[in-house]
Amino acid sequence: MENSDPNSVGIVERKVFSFAGEGEDALKLDSGKILKNINLAYETYGHLNDDKSNAILILHALSGDAHVAGFNNSSDDKPGWWDNIIGPGKPLDTKKYFIICSNVIGGCAGSTGPSDINSETNKPYGLDFPFVTVFDMVRAQKKLIDNFGIEQLLAVIGGSMGGMQALVWAVENSVNVKGTVVIASTSSHSAQCIAFNEVGRQAILSDKNFQSGAYYDSDVTPQEGLSVARMIGHITYLSDESMGEKFGRKIQNFDGGETKNKQGYEYDLGVDTVFQIESYLRHQGATFNKRFDANSYLVITKAIDHFDLAKRYGNLEKAFEKVNSRVLVISYSSDWLYPTYHSKKIVKSMMKVGVDVSFSEIRTEKGHDAFLLEDKYLSGYLTAFLEALPERN
Amino acid sequence: MENSDPNSVGIVERKVFSFAGEGEDALKLDSGKILKNINLAYETYGHLNDDKSNAILILHALSGDAHVAGFNNSSDDKPGWWDNIIGPGKPLDTKKYFIICSNVIGGCAGSTGPSDINSETNKPYGLDFPFVTVFDMVRAQKKLIDNFGIEQLLAVIGGSMGGMQALVWAVENSVNVKGTVVIASTSSHSAQCIAFNEVGRQAILSDKNFQSGAYYDSDVTPQEGLSVARMIGHITYLSDESMGEKFGRKIQNFDGGETKNKQGYEYDLGVDTVFQIESYLRHQGATFNKRFDANSYLVITKAIDHFDLAKRYGNLEKAFEKVNSRVLVISYSSDWLYPTYHSKKIVKSMMKVGVDVSFSEIRTEKGHDAFLLEDKYLSGYLTAFLEALPERN
Repeated sequence: MENSDPNSVGIVERKVFSFAGEGEDALKLDSGKILKNINLAYETYGHLNDDKSNAILILHALSGDAHVAGFNNSSDDKPGWWDNIIGPGKPLDTKKYFIICSNVIGGCAGSTGPSDINSETNKPYGLDFPFVTVFDMVRAQKKLIDNFGIEQLLAVIGGSMGGMQALVWAVENSVNVKGTVVIASTSSHSAQCIAFNEVGRQAILSDKNFQSGAYYDSDVTPQEGLSVARMIGHITYLSDESMGEKFGRKIQNFDGGETKNKQGYEYDLGVDTVFQIESYLRHQGATFNKRFDANSYLVITKAIDHFDLAKRYGNLEKAFEKVNSRVLVISYSSDWLYPTYHSKKIVKSMMKVGVDVSFSEIRTEKGHDAFLLEDKYLSGYLTAFLEALPERN
Repeated sequence: MENSDPNSVGIVERKVFSFAGEGEDALKLDSGKILKNINLAYETYGHLNDDKSNAILILHALSGDAHVAGFNNSSDDKPGWWDNIIGPGKPLDTKKYFIICSNVIGGCAGSTGPSDINSETNKPYGLDFPFVTVFDMVRAQKKLIDNFGIEQLLAVIGGSMGGMQALVWAVENSVNVKGTVVIASTSSHSAQCIAFNEVGRQAILSDKNFQSGAYYDSDVTPQEGLSVARMIGHITYLSDESMGEKFGRKIQNFDGGETKNKQGYEYDLGVDTVFQIESYLRHQGATFNKRFDANSYLVITKAIDHFDLAKRYGNLEKAFEKVNSRVLVISYSSDWLYPTYHSKKIVKSMMKVGVDVSFSEIRTEKGHDAFLLEDKYLSGYLTAFLEALPERN
């Protein structure tokens, strides 16, 4: 890590907020089930001002966590997932704003999820973890924000699944949000989105080591299934063009001209790596296993597949009638997971009911994952949007 | 089946052509390995005319086989895979043309493949089946055509992997082909194509019942892995739009209004079907197991991932310099597996070296699989292209 970097938040600590404990109200979920003894892992950067008007809540995507910026210890080789956006002097300037991000419930990075002990059985929840919706995730976040004594967030900002949460904040907690930023997201999953998630789930469920989700005390975990699920996901986060540019048909084990045959390919059916894209995806799959739990993957993909604002409120206009905040919607031209038409649908419905909404499609070949990368357009939009918010009543 | 349908080829028989047997030349593969005792399963419809000038070779896609039209027996409930195109009075009119289609080597529908006995071990090949290229597939087909005494095919026609074979026929056996039709295909797999195939292969290789490919004498086969691979493939054969239209967010087990909760969803994590698209894909995966062999899936996806005409000949122009036939290239606007730019690359290179090539992009929301569906534009192009061929020298 770069301890001396003036634009880094530096070493940050993961904290835990606990609620719904003994004597407190349990969290009632959309499914009707209740969840008790909930932990929310969270991080904060910057300082909450006296009138508590400078707080920004960051909402993470499927595989994200509370660690958005800085380093958790001095030997960290990688900063948080949005470090290019958050820090002193960065678009989400920690000299001005108090940044909060919490891991979603159902997750596996410190917040209550399937790997935690179910107090009714004294065993990890596994598949008994209740079905969680994006609305449930936001309900839990609201408790954290209330605990800070923050009545109104300056902004809620999220990409992908984080954008869904931002929409829910704007709709369900409209008086508590001044600005809403929805990046590379959707108001409901398309059949194609559901299809990819379903294949990932099937890969996990059919892994020989899945053990009906009760693998926490086992020597083996459904690594291969989760790896396949991650590989599928990863393809959808990139684009045909970006994969072509980055990998094309380059061969990984091409031995500098001394190839085994005139095509330079290994005529091998399964084991050896041939194309760089294959090696890259296998690596992505393998490393994902070190930081993610297969049961959480099931819980969270189900949550986003079921996310459907129009269905919940009758139609999108009815949903957005409640929105009080200013809204910024951003899409990426090569995002084929949530193509621009998903964003335009949100914007159109918001416009119809008079929401103060701005929209931009950023041209890029980077695909869905573009929202995680440094980009002068995104930075510019965020800076301008946030700077104008305090003036607004 | 419709025995009385005047536009059907009716009951057809699968035949087998054997070559490379005792005392005959073995087939030398691109890998340098040789393959002996080869069977090619094939079907023919119509009659070969006296000067053997009316033969059309159909080339099948990844999951296809030799059974292109008609019914194999009177209890068949489904005709061959291109029955809408082939038959008396249809675009490939069996009253005029002699139609041949053979299953590719490496396949699992009658031609020599991984499930056959390796004479060196007296056990099924499994993963010992040699690496096969699209060029090898065509080499074997050439033996079949030679056996018919056909010096020049009126046309070679194929979609998807069949289009790759058609290109190889046009390039490698240029004097033996009068017309070449390449539909929804490519001159080389993109990184994205390879990526999807690789995830499918990983799903198969990690199936607990894969048994290193030696599952033929086992009670269990890698059904779940093959099923996941097929599900992934199937998504790439459709389009965002067609899946949206056909399935959208429709719920499979919605019980006519008596839903368990206000969203009409089952809050269930894994087992129950919820969205129709999930049910559809699971069904596609399950039925594929009845007709396809996981080892063949590995062999054939590797073959198409390695297909790269430009790499083989130095560049595409050099490859196409050899083409002597007239060529028709067709793409589909919503095909995102082999998007139109793949076809245009072929057409552009052919034009540069003076190949007589026509091209059309057919507008459709049906995605890659559009080439298998009835379509008046495809029918019209095929009819016109074929009718003009006999005049050409």
